[in-house]
Amino acid sequence: MSQPQTVQVVGAGLIGTSIALGLRERGLDVFVDDVDAAHVRVAVDRGAGEPGHAPNPDVVVVAVPPAEVAEAVAHALAEWPDAVVTDVASVKSDVAASVSGQPGAERYVGSHPMAGRERSGPVAASARLFEGLPWVLVPLAESRDDAVEVVRWIADALGAAPRVMDALTHDRAVALVSHVPQVLSVLTAARLRHAPAEHVALAGPGLRDVTRIAGSDPALWVDILGRNAAEVLAVLLAVRDDLTSAIDALANDPEAIVKLLEAGREGTTAIPGKHGDRAVAWAPVYVVVADRPRELERVVADAGQSGVNIEDLRIQHELGRPAGVVEIFVLPEHADTLVTSLVARGWPAYR
Amino acid sequence: MSQPQTVQVVGAGLIGTSIALGLRERGLDVFVDDVDAAHVRVAVDRGAGEPGHAPNPDVVVVAVPPAEVAEAVAHALAEWPDAVVTDVASVKSDVAASVSGQPGAERYVGSHPMAGRERSGPVAASARLFEGLPWVLVPLAESRDDAVEVVRWIADALGAAPRVMDALTHDRAVALVSHVPQVLSVLTAARLRHAPAEHVALAGPGLRDVTRIAGSDPALWVDILGRNAAEVLAVLLAVRDDLTSAIDALANDPEAIVKLLEAGREGTTAIPGKHGDRAVAWAPVYVVVADRPRELERVVADAGQSGVNIEDLRIQHELGRPAGVVEIFVLPEHADTLVTSLVARGWPAYR
Repeated sequence: MSQPQTVQVVGAGLIGTSIALGLRERGLDVFVDDVDAAHVRVAVDRGAGEPGHAPNPDVVVVAVPPAEVAEAVAHALAEWPDAVVTDVASVKSDVAASVSGQPGAERYVGSHPMAGRERSGPVAASARLFEGLPWVLVPLAESRDDAVEVVRWIADALGAAPRVMDALTHDRAVALVSHVPQVLSVLTAARLRHAPAEHVALAGPGLRDVTRIAGSDPALWVDILGRNAAEVLAVLLAVRDDLTSAIDALANDPEAIVKLLEAGREGTTAIPGKHGDRAVAWAPVYVVVADRPRELERVVADAGQSGVNIEDLRIQHELGRPAGVVEIFVLPEHADTLVTSLVARGWPAYR
Repeated sequence: MSQPQTVQVVGAGLIGTSIALGLRERGLDVFVDDVDAAHVRVAVDRGAGEPGHAPNPDVVVVAVPPAEVAEAVAHALAEWPDAVVTDVASVKSDVAASVSGQPGAERYVGSHPMAGRERSGPVAASARLFEGLPWVLVPLAESRDDAVEVVRWIADALGAAPRVMDALTHDRAVALVSHVPQVLSVLTAARLRHAPAEHVALAGPGLRDVTRIAGSDPALWVDILGRNAAEVLAVLLAVRDDLTSAIDALANDPEAIVKLLEAGREGTTAIPGKHGDRAVAWAPVYVVVADRPRELERVVADAGQSGVNIEDLRIQHELGRPAGVVEIFVLPEHADTLVTSLVARGWPAYR
């Protein structure tokens, strides 16, 4: 039996409350606790389950702030000697090291549900927070198979895509695909701080893309980067070597920077696209839309009338003009059909 | 009289042909030339004007590859002694330096129409390419006012947002908001080149945002970076100092990295948002949609029924799940209304 019946959630923040709400929707018995009684009250009011401690839960989900995870996991393993225990911290090696070899370690399996965190607290929680997103399971060497399967059941039940990794592999992976990109986005944005307004007025969609995640909460990221410092450092040192090569090339032989540019383009093809395929080359169709209510709905509806499926969509809001450009991405062989159809409906569309 | 009647376009690539098409639509007499006769043929077939040289054009638009711009501008000033001459190169100081002080310099005004370049050549040209985008005018000290006004008329006629800058200010600005972000996006992507597939499988929308522009054509960027090497270098050296501070912090005192994170967050607020305002804090509403035809059209149409205006929209395609998450950005005070309305129409929507 992989399906648990009773779940204890420790920590009623965004992630803990979202897990509780999702499991309640699926009919499980859920108990929610938190050192902050107000958090528990909000979570319970929203339907996350019963307040307090379950006498004998099948699973305990530790969803406390990162600095408290290791202690809370040890505490849970001791308090509930029959329960599988998991946590949701975004860095796994330090927790794994602290639990491994301790009593009850065979009942522990780490988790990292890779859900967004634009807001926090139980008010922002949603039973749907994990749908369609990766959820990494990080068993210890001594974790029992049935413990892994129980946590996998939870990830599946919440609509996430579970995958198993060891702690070091997980931490290296997130350093590369999440923590270092965060640092580089921040480095780009930091240069804009004292820039004259007429300089940043020339910003296009590329700058907005690169710097979007730099707007995230510094306190959260200090913690993440600090916990994964060794893995992040290893990648940042390699980045600095590449940057120094780029600087040398620009100072002495600009043509030589082509190697870095080619490496970057090659790197982008390693990022999986829709359905886990390698990136698909969709073709953009551009439509100029007036910046007034309902225009986006109208253009999307008219694009749908063409019979061409919209694969992706972006909106460019530019400066100083009462118009924006909507990029509609479609399969390349359908782009001309879409342009013709939109133009026939009166839209200024082009490839 | 700022409005020209006869325009000579030299160089029938994406930008030159797009300018020609746009000005033809507005009733001007346009002549198109290119060293590549096939380009001229395509441009003329598409309605860009007459092939060859105008006897006495009011304006000459030089739209040749960057390496040939300075010579082509000098040639145009000599061949057409009454014409205003402009070019469209994306770096301005080198062209300005070569023209300034030469005969006819008072008739020259540099241009940088900041249009996208995902494709190239006259086949990809569009009369609408410049609509809603900045177009920088770069007069020399000796440029005549009426020459500036003629080029401004062209930018306006093509739907762009003209603004005047000197060459050095322009090159500094694009180093900061375009060229350095390009290098940092490339540095991020280059690290992914040899990454195991299971690592990049954890990529989320943040990584895709940061690395999107790294997929651009290396040959184009070698040229741009080489021409603006001094300004790009100045910013990259500052970036390297910040990166070294970050590395030192992670190695010795992770808490100290908070300064960089805060600088980055502050930098993002300098990027103008819609209508040129400082970035507006829209609230995201999340909707889980099945990955099948028509779902995006359906959700956008239903969102429109709520009466709430969609300010922006993003689609997250995640791995290993037959669903995606659509983020609909609205004014914060409208987010709850939209969620309620979408849920009532059967969508799994949440804030």
